[in-house]
Amino acid sequence: MTQPQRRYVITFGCPDRTGIVARISQFLADAGGWIVEAAYHTDPETGWFFTRQEVLAESLPFDVAELRARFAGVVAELGGEGKVADTGRRQRVVLLVSKEGHCLYDLLGRVASGELDVDVAAVIGNHEDLASITRAHGIPFHHISFREDKVAAFAEVRSVVDAAEPDAIVLARFMQILPRQLCEAWAGRALNIHHSFLPSFVGAKPYHQAYQRGVKLIGATCHYVTAELDAGPIVEQDVIRVGHGDSVRDMVRKGRDIEKVVLARGLRWHLESRVLVHGNKTVVF
Amino acid sequence: MTQPQRRYVITFGCPDRTGIVARISQFLADAGGWIVEAAYHTDPETGWFFTRQEVLAESLPFDVAELRARFAGVVAELGGEGKVADTGRRQRVVLLVSKEGHCLYDLLGRVASGELDVDVAAVIGNHEDLASITRAHGIPFHHISFREDKVAAFAEVRSVVDAAEPDAIVLARFMQILPRQLCEAWAGRALNIHHSFLPSFVGAKPYHQAYQRGVKLIGATCHYVTAELDAGPIVEQDVIRVGHGDSVRDMVRKGRDIEKVVLARGLRWHLESRVLVHGNKTVVF
Amino acid sequence: MTQPQRRYVITFGCPDRTGIVARISQFLADAGGWIVEAAYHTDPETGWFFTRQEVLAESLPFDVAELRARFAGVVAELGGEGKVADTGRRQRVVLLVSKEGHCLYDLLGRVASGELDVDVAAVIGNHEDLASITRAHGIPFHHISFREDKVAAFAEVRSVVDAAEPDAIVLARFMQILPRQLCEAWAGRALNIHHSFLPSFVGAKPYHQAYQRGVKLIGATCHYVTAELDAGPIVEQDVIRVGHGDSVRDMVRKGRDIEKVVLARGLRWHLESRVLVHGNKTVVF
Amino acid sequence: MTQPQRRYVITFGCPDRTGIVARISQFLADAGGWIVEAAYHTDPETGWFFTRQEVLAESLPFDVAELRARFAGVVAELGGEGKVADTGRRQRVVLLVSKEGHCLYDLLGRVASGELDVDVAAVIGNHEDLASITRAHGIPFHHISFREDKVAAFAEVRSVVDAAEPDAIVLARFMQILPRQLCEAWAGRALNIHHSFLPSFVGAKPYHQAYQRGVKLIGATCHYVTAELDAGPIVEQDVIRVGHGDSVRDMVRKGRDIEKVVLARGLRWHLESRVLVHGNKTVVF
Repeated sequence: MTQPQRRYVITFGCPDRTGIVARISQFLADAGGWIVEAAYHTDPETGWFFTRQEVLAESLPFDVAELRARFAGVVAELGGEGKVADTGRRQRVVLLVSKEGHCLYDLLGRVASGELDVDVAAVIGNHEDLASITRAHGIPFHHISFREDKVAAFAEVRSVVDAAEPDAIVLARFMQILPRQLCEAWAGRALNIHHSFLPSFVGAKPYHQAYQRGVKLIGATCHYVTAELDAGPIVEQDVIRVGHGDSVRDMVRKGRDIEKVVLARGLRWHLESRVLVHGNKTVVF
Repeated sequence: MTQPQRRYVITFGCPDRTGIVARISQFLADAGGWIVEAAYHTDPETGWFFTRQEVLAESLPFDVAELRARFAGVVAELGGEGKVADTGRRQRVVLLVSKEGHCLYDLLGRVASGELDVDVAAVIGNHEDLASITRAHGIPFHHISFREDKVAAFAEVRSVVDAAEPDAIVLARFMQILPRQLCEAWAGRALNIHHSFLPSFVGAKPYHQAYQRGVKLIGATCHYVTAELDAGPIVEQDVIRVGHGDSVRDMVRKGRDIEKVVLARGLRWHLESRVLVHGNKTVVF
Repeated sequence: MTQPQRRYVITFGCPDRTGIVARISQFLADAGGWIVEAAYHTDPETGWFFTRQEVLAESLPFDVAELRARFAGVVAELGGEGKVADTGRRQRVVLLVSKEGHCLYDLLGRVASGELDVDVAAVIGNHEDLASITRAHGIPFHHISFREDKVAAFAEVRSVVDAAEPDAIVLARFMQILPRQLCEAWAGRALNIHHSFLPSFVGAKPYHQAYQRGVKLIGATCHYVTAELDAGPIVEQDVIRVGHGDSVRDMVRKGRDIEKVVLARGLRWHLESRVLVHGNKTVVF
Repeated sequence: MTQPQRRYVITFGCPDRTGIVARISQFLADAGGWIVEAAYHTDPETGWFFTRQEVLAESLPFDVAELRARFAGVVAELGGEGKVADTGRRQRVVLLVSKEGHCLYDLLGRVASGELDVDVAAVIGNHEDLASITRAHGIPFHHISFREDKVAAFAEVRSVVDAAEPDAIVLARFMQILPRQLCEAWAGRALNIHHSFLPSFVGAKPYHQAYQRGVKLIGATCHYVTAELDAGPIVEQDVIRVGHGDSVRDMVRKGRDIEKVVLARGLRWHLESRVLVHGNKTVVF
């Protein structure tokens, strides 16, 4: 199977009115742009228009910088917010972990097998349990202890993360709550996996909560991190069936398979510029 | 396809200890009972043992009254709670509805096609919208208005329901909250369908709440009615995927397909004595 | 909840090249058309471009006849195939049934509750079992026996169907195989529900086949009828879990819930012009 | 979370008659055996009875050898086939792989995180691609080339496998077809993951076949290997939704997430003695 061709990915949002699609598609047509994927949505409640378009890079007679410059004119004219991503640039992610390794193993496997084509710049762990598998993949592991001074620890986390200039910061079952200033600094780039079907079972020990309530399905939620705990814009969710025979231990095990896949999907969509955030909700194209 | 043979269904629960299975199965074996389905469960947290057994009626040399009398001896000896149901007796249900007909249409269709082999003794509606389809199925429809005097209305509901001596009282999108004394009088027999994946979105307008939160799946929950709103023991739940393109109206429509099937499954399991309640949780065999 | 506003639905397909989206959206923008939903797809294998657009009727300064006339010009220019549907015109369907009523009950319930806003012009049954429920809904039921002369029977079916000029002919568990000339006459309008996850278990008694093979999921498939049995373009499929405890009888019962919902979704999408057929595959917008 | 206690797992099958449950449970009760999980099933078509029972090891006054000796008497008396497994003995598995690593990465991650408590005795690959990740987990990797002499290669595979005396031989996307004598030698121990929802799309390139047919769900099947290709007893299956926008490449990627989880579930159930094979079907307790 051949690699997909290089593409420029345009995402754009603005207040809805007639003629937006025509304006953007004419802009691309004038440049000879070959659109290989296009999606549109208008939120009827907020009256906000969203689009995402993938254009074959080689169909345009200029480079991405020029495309960005020209598209900025369209954005200014329409009065919204737009961005142009380039699939030819390899993206970087930083992973934050604790002791539980299932999401880390899963993501590293996807990277190693070429499914997730990113550069894992660093893994940060507040425990050392996952250092050796990380290093076996040739990725630097930073152990930063949170036992003594949390403020200093978060400062160190921030320094390692920011040095990598990552496109995504992934809390892959990182058991520490990010301080407000980090949530704000990384807004729109920090993804968390929460091990419940939010908004049920916010906070600690969601599988225990699920067990106590006697629910018949358990879930996982990938969401952007915001200052309010487990309340950020939801990117993806999924569930799996449980029954009376499942102990908390069984739920933890079954839930992991959902956590892994929900986080991997959320991260992929984020990196492919498929997730457009508006208010506390997401459009996933 | 031939009808399944008449069966006696034994359900039993008691504090767990060794020898319970042996005691019950020896009791049945001694009488020549042919077990066609058997399930066991012990809840490790409460130490409670549960079982359900289906025995072919014709394999026993005595009738159900005698089986009940003999089994009462075993129950007394083991110190738990047991019951014997007889599939040869046709069960009765009463349905409570409001204006939204999808669950009623669905249940009546299942009854008419023979899938749900019950006698719908009455349908009670606080609006008249669903009177004519009910009567087309040959079932009495009672219109009881809640506009003026709710206390009197519930008294009338109770009188109609209790006259039918139903095995199940089904709140098929009945939009009134049952008063505490009805919850208690009908404990273990009243099933509700709530249009959310509980415990998320308790109370009114759950699809609006789901829309606001931006969840990626919506659900429905069938539970026993208790005095605390939407907090009774859960019998069954299911979910369906939604996306940014789904309005509240779309969620309402998609959710209906889940409500119908979750309620129908919950009701079937209840009528087949598959649901054993313990505390606020259910075992569904 | 208010009714959705009247919309014109444009569907179009042509060989892919640059500028198509721009041409169509400019055409709509020039007329002041307010696009409320838009979808695009290009099939990389066949190089065929597909689009579907919903435009608010009241945003255009002319009526649907004029829109069709003008759009025909665009279609001619681009060299493809296009259509304009009008949600203001109530569509007609004819249902073909046999003895099993679950799909009929389900569809009639959806129509009666307003969920499926169509005119059921007629129900045709080769048995009389479903006559009375059909008539209770105020819909004409035609009993056409297939016992003696199948050719004459199909001629009568055709005459009843064609008289209704239906937008969809639904084989709702109709157990007769349509002759080739009817498949051709109704091409693109006749939908069948097959009670397996095609291409597994083509033909008769799919649940028996599934039981023999020991599969762990059973399914249903809604597809357009073509001359080759159970081989037409697939519109929708879904599955449900089964286990060793499920007899053929249980599979039949569980499968019904999937058949109903898969057929209802397929029919809805067909009526909303969401299904574009190309070769033996469908694009479902 | 504490480790589960050591258990003895009894599995047993025989022609159905009354008194079997009583006989087995009395046998366990007489020895003071504390049953923590019990399941029963009778297949109505073949009249075969199945059971699986988990007993706390410490509740018995004798060891597993004595339990086996005594249980053999019960088995002889009832005329069936029975086995006693001991969770205190760590099981061994051998994995056969080719170039595609997703199932291997997944299984190694489960083993490393303690979720799958087995000893991976060896990984055999007909290519060297997965040697280094295997060795990073401290597991021996055997490269056996199939380019020249397949008969010799399979002889070598057999020799490595048999030397490990494995409880399970897992074909984790091993792209070679096992010769009949290996299928027979490893009957009931060799698990394969096939990347389709069998019986659809047997053999090579199932995702290409699925793409051509235009199905709306793709799946994966874990089954015991038999001499007939992709036709052995099915242990587990699952599916994931695809749409017109999914290329074969997308299907391959999405399908992997199903393959991984279906194989992991099938392997877990096999190792926990939950899968009882009878004819070409499985009972999964």
